[in-house]
Amino acid sequence: MREQHHSSNYRLTVRLELANRPGVFARVAALLATQKANLGAVDLVDANRDKMIREITFDVPGEAKAAKIVEHLKKIKNVRVLSVSDRVLQLHSNGKIEIHSKVPVLSRSQLSMVYTPGVARVCEAIAAHPEKVYSLTIKSNSVAIVTDGTAILGLGNLGPKAALPVMEGKAMLFKQFAGIDAWPICLDTQDENEIVRTVKLLAPVFGGVNLEDISAPRCFAIEERLKKELDIPVMHDDQHGTAVVILAALQNALKLVKKNLSDVRIVVSGIGAAGVACCQILLAAGARRILACNRKGVVFNPSEADLVRAQKDIFPFIHRDRPEGKLLEALNGADVFIGVSAGNLLKPADLKRMRKDRIVFAMANPDPEVDPDEAVRLCRVFATGRSDYPNQINNALAFPGIFRGALDVRAHSINEEMKMAASRAIAELIPSDQLSEEYIVPSIFDKRVVEAVSAAVREAACDTDAGHPRLCLIS
Amino acid sequence: MREQHHSSNYRLTVRLELANRPGVFARVAALLATQKANLGAVDLVDANRDKMIREITFDVPGEAKAAKIVEHLKKIKNVRVLSVSDRVLQLHSNGKIEIHSKVPVLSRSQLSMVYTPGVARVCEAIAAHPEKVYSLTIKSNSVAIVTDGTAILGLGNLGPKAALPVMEGKAMLFKQFAGIDAWPICLDTQDENEIVRTVKLLAPVFGGVNLEDISAPRCFAIEERLKKELDIPVMHDDQHGTAVVILAALQNALKLVKKNLSDVRIVVSGIGAAGVACCQILLAAGARRILACNRKGVVFNPSEADLVRAQKDIFPFIHRDRPEGKLLEALNGADVFIGVSAGNLLKPADLKRMRKDRIVFAMANPDPEVDPDEAVRLCRVFATGRSDYPNQINNALAFPGIFRGALDVRAHSINEEMKMAASRAIAELIPSDQLSEEYIVPSIFDKRVVEAVSAAVREAACDTDAGHPRLCLIS
Repeated sequence: MREQHHSSNYRLTVRLELANRPGVFARVAALLATQKANLGAVDLVDANRDKMIREITFDVPGEAKAAKIVEHLKKIKNVRVLSVSDRVLQLHSNGKIEIHSKVPVLSRSQLSMVYTPGVARVCEAIAAHPEKVYSLTIKSNSVAIVTDGTAILGLGNLGPKAALPVMEGKAMLFKQFAGIDAWPICLDTQDENEIVRTVKLLAPVFGGVNLEDISAPRCFAIEERLKKELDIPVMHDDQHGTAVVILAALQNALKLVKKNLSDVRIVVSGIGAAGVACCQILLAAGARRILACNRKGVVFNPSEADLVRAQKDIFPFIHRDRPEGKLLEALNGADVFIGVSAGNLLKPADLKRMRKDRIVFAMANPDPEVDPDEAVRLCRVFATGRSDYPNQINNALAFPGIFRGALDVRAHSINEEMKMAASRAIAELIPSDQLSEEYIVPSIFDKRVVEAVSAAVREAACDTDAGHPRLCLIS
Repeated sequence: MREQHHSSNYRLTVRLELANRPGVFARVAALLATQKANLGAVDLVDANRDKMIREITFDVPGEAKAAKIVEHLKKIKNVRVLSVSDRVLQLHSNGKIEIHSKVPVLSRSQLSMVYTPGVARVCEAIAAHPEKVYSLTIKSNSVAIVTDGTAILGLGNLGPKAALPVMEGKAMLFKQFAGIDAWPICLDTQDENEIVRTVKLLAPVFGGVNLEDISAPRCFAIEERLKKELDIPVMHDDQHGTAVVILAALQNALKLVKKNLSDVRIVVSGIGAAGVACCQILLAAGARRILACNRKGVVFNPSEADLVRAQKDIFPFIHRDRPEGKLLEALNGADVFIGVSAGNLLKPADLKRMRKDRIVFAMANPDPEVDPDEAVRLCRVFATGRSDYPNQINNALAFPGIFRGALDVRAHSINEEMKMAASRAIAELIPSDQLSEEYIVPSIFDKRVVEAVSAAVREAACDTDAGHPRLCLIS
């Protein structure tokens, strides 16, 4: 199992019985310090004259390290390890979301209103006026989080069951940040046609579809077809959520270095789901000098057989001044590096090929394209997708507000204008006088984010006739 | 729109401004009494020397009646109608269920455990050991409520959107009675193959499938195929939930009249989803004399082209002593009438064709097969599907406990033994000394029901090797 690096990624709670005398707990604390474990809560569970029982929680960088520390703990004199529990697995026990009723059903009278026979009138109202499904059911606030498990986080094709913990986590974020009721749909097929057909068949219950962790290039066609064939908003978050936040972060970073988007030379490493969407939104925002690289180097021939249409669409625009070369050559003289590819592609020293005031977004998960501890010193602005460094480029800044805004005005789609508006709203939350190298995007826990993004998305939806006319009049 | 009959089916809340003097409200109350409206809460909202504002809630038998009463209210002197709101529609505003997180996400540390990067380890654990999807996700407690909208309540084929309020209501019952997290799946197709395929593709997220309101004969094949092809329990509740409760009620009714199931002549009216399942479970429980009737009369020829296989299966057994005739002729000398067909098929006097100690279950919704007010006087035991008469035969007595029990031992299916066990458990909740003509089934709000049913189902599942061996050892 790969070592994970985030501080709270591997969190253990250990129950210890210690002899009740001075210095015993100090030996435990010293061991944890030596082993670089980050000690959190220390609870006293029970104590008598001879013994005390304590529960301690600490974070370690990985599973192997955790096992080693427990072995060391067992060897400390006057300390007995009573139990070891893994906080992350504990938190996932039996899943992370549940259904609640908004209305109690404690009497026959209540039952007869929410269920048969009372509900019959509600059904008939919708049958007579299908648009009433929005006001009389969960549809107006429901989003399907759809995956086929082909591109789970950075882990690859683990299938639909292994994808479920991520989709549940996403559902929590939808609720927490935007009050949206999202349900995981993990499909037991990786066939493009079946995925499209199935999502269409499921659509009556949902007000929107968030495609998630579907591998490129299949994700491009699946999203495009669903957008065409459904009358509710569909968005592949790995593409557009990421792209929206990257653009916001880049616009703010460019303000700091006083460069213009249309002038800077941008290297995009990775032309999967996120990379293609990133190039698209950068071009739409006015970027003119993009070098998109895949494993082989700068993508130079739009007719290459292994390229998909969504990729081909962007190629005529992205290498006007540097038609070929490897990633390292592309870096020569670049102003901006955006990595949405794989961990540790670059040595920190490689960044020296770039121009002054380097802007580097190294977003691969869990390991960035370049070692963050070293890179941060070489760059003017450095950002990752991780929460343990400043400037976390997290699509949780975008998707809650984008869907909130789209649902609020019952938009039939999420178009380019809505995404650009979301990106501007995120960037503008940081006033010029607060902008700094370590603060180019707001915190995902900043409550203003979803309000600002959803308001901007509503306005853009209405301006482009994507919103429902009546709801646009009101808002 | 059809008139509905249940007392709380059409509930209005009206805000009135009344002159503050004696006798004004009395005129309002008198009007409601005259119009046979059932007055509920009367709230005082505001009052001064001249006026008072009151909000009154009352139930009426239908929409037309409600409109008429409001017109009358407007004509009462010194009374002004300020607003009228429809309680049932209000309760359905924006739907009746929502998603909650079981774990808060208020900090980066929590986020990093429930979502990326911490969640990666959980995904990897499931990819390595797929059965861990039960312990680490919502699957162990999730049920899909699947419909295609072809047979919504008694209303017919209204399509998937109009079905949603019923499925949300069902999800509330799953949660309320059995703590199960159920999510509505309303499919935008009525094609048997597509329904089967789609449910299979959705299965990774769910621990069970409740098929609901799918029309006969398609429901038989859809359930049969899904049972064969999925490793999670699948049950069409309109068939088996209903049948389980009918059998429980009949066993208790027969105790009262001291007759045996194997001796009594039973007329089953309606051979749709519920009727066929009812015949099946009655035969399995030992019934030997069943006359099943459709619109044309007693079904006598198993080779009739319009019969489906599930129906044909039961025919060799159900008319040994009376091969043909109309429904009325079938009633001659019958001991038991079970109606799962359509409202007002019979005149109350028709019941006199039956033998002494008549047992009549008239379950059509919302109007029973025979007028309940008159029939109740002609029968020894009379039951309906409605909550406004004694003996409500409601499948909410069965399905929560059946699924609870099946999920608890991770059963791969819901077999005949499990259904029979559920039926016995429901019947046995009423001790012989409490059994009476008006109390043959427990209340759906009796908390013992789900406990008894789920325990019986767990035991039957384990006895028949339908449960997971490890979980059966524990329980």
